[in-house]
Amino acid sequence: MTKQEIISQIKKKESFLCIGLDTDITKIPPHLLKEKDPIFEFNKQIIDATHDLCVAYKPNLAFYETMGAKGWESLLKTIEYIPNHIFTIADAKRGDIGNTSTMYAKAFYENLKVDSVTVAPYMGSDSVIPFLEFKNKWVILLALTSNRGADDFQFFESNDEKLFEKVLKQSQKWGNEENLMYVVGATRPEMFKKIREIVPNHFLLVPGVGAQGGELKEVCKYGMNKDCGLLINSSRGIIYAGNDLNFAKKSREEAHKIQKEMSILLK
Amino acid sequence: MTKQEIISQIKKKESFLCIGLDTDITKIPPHLLKEKDPIFEFNKQIIDATHDLCVAYKPNLAFYETMGAKGWESLLKTIEYIPNHIFTIADAKRGDIGNTSTMYAKAFYENLKVDSVTVAPYMGSDSVIPFLEFKNKWVILLALTSNRGADDFQFFESNDEKLFEKVLKQSQKWGNEENLMYVVGATRPEMFKKIREIVPNHFLLVPGVGAQGGELKEVCKYGMNKDCGLLINSSRGIIYAGNDLNFAKKSREEAHKIQKEMSILLK
Repeated sequence: MTKQEIISQIKKKESFLCIGLDTDITKIPPHLLKEKDPIFEFNKQIIDATHDLCVAYKPNLAFYETMGAKGWESLLKTIEYIPNHIFTIADAKRGDIGNTSTMYAKAFYENLKVDSVTVAPYMGSDSVIPFLEFKNKWVILLALTSNRGADDFQFFESNDEKLFEKVLKQSQKWGNEENLMYVVGATRPEMFKKIREIVPNHFLLVPGVGAQGGELKEVCKYGMNKDCGLLINSSRGIIYAGNDLNFAKKSREEAHKIQKEMSILLK
Repeated sequence: MTKQEIISQIKKKESFLCIGLDTDITKIPPHLLKEKDPIFEFNKQIIDATHDLCVAYKPNLAFYETMGAKGWESLLKTIEYIPNHIFTIADAKRGDIGNTSTMYAKAFYENLKVDSVTVAPYMGSDSVIPFLEFKNKWVILLALTSNRGADDFQFFESNDEKLFEKVLKQSQKWGNEENLMYVVGATRPEMFKKIREIVPNHFLLVPGVGAQGGELKEVCKYGMNKDCGLLINSSRGIIYAGNDLNFAKKSREEAHKIQKEMSILLK
């Protein structure tokens, strides 16, 4: 998917919501457990109920890998079921030496057919570049994450430059705003100002709104650019809004609340 | 597996060789392609031919994920087939926020039943600690990797401390020498001296010998400790030593060459 196509969808739907499909067999409504593939059935109903309110879905790979081969099948069916105009993100945090990253890129872009993969930067250029060599596919590189442990290394500072700033700068030699986005957590909205000085035009994937405590309005105040430039993710707050026969309706209500807020923020 | 069990195996086999199972469907001998599960059949024959010469096997997850659900099945069968006394490493370079890392840990330790997982440090404490909470299981944390891109961020320096040194120091607050090892590439043997000052007793997993150009003798000179303290990985050099009906015999010959060298270095 191209950057222009993502922007068009945001304008059309008045939404920059990404829904995280962190689908956990122990948390889905019990009546689904009698289905042949409960994980897919859950995702299918969530997608049916929310696809007009969001512009991206982000399955979290850990939740599928924990189900083994069966989980991989559920994931594949889920990706196939998502309408083509919706951006898909494999939240996988991958990254390895060159030939291995190429293998991961093939696994995600060619076999799973997602539009993007989240990638960890620690191993540097040759761990990231193989993911950038696929037409109309995206790397979403970890820059400043939303978790507590982000403090351990991401703020490591050399000559007034923090590690996450170095990641933002260095990676612009490898990709551009047409194939590279960054993960920036919503839990540190004050950091968006500085980040936008380094990457004014790139899209940012922002987790941490909702369950992790981030504030949508604050993030937009400092993080939004002329193209919107944000994909705001919510996972647990939407998909686990209900736990009975009406769970999908409940998830739609939650997604709708956020979409209405986004519609105002886009104006 | 406990640290003492690993040390016992090293003494018994006079080997600290880890064989990397980077099994690529496009590189295995063509006669295997008629098998129902060519990837598993290849691994099985490699394991049969080498299990008395090595103390660890390290499947590289990317090579299995690229085969989708079928790849996951091949991986599971491979892990089950490896004799119990041999240490198993899921080379997966995972790491995510706490609840997601817990999911990955379950996927690897409980479902795949491997002894260890390689983990990327960028997201800090709560991305690593969930992997350390499983009895007799190990985290192998990326410190200094063998690839070219390692220069991009791992040597980032603050107050005379490089990022990879900070990773070595900080992570010792989370784990200890009984559940935490580090990845240190063989392509920089001169760095082992400094690394051993920070982590004198931890095991180090050392990739990069062979195909990537690292030198076994040099690594041992600076990296070995009183318990040996090294697991030296070779992947392509061993498993792709031959490409015909005799491939497993050829892989044994290559593994044997390294084991004989290791036997001398252990004395």
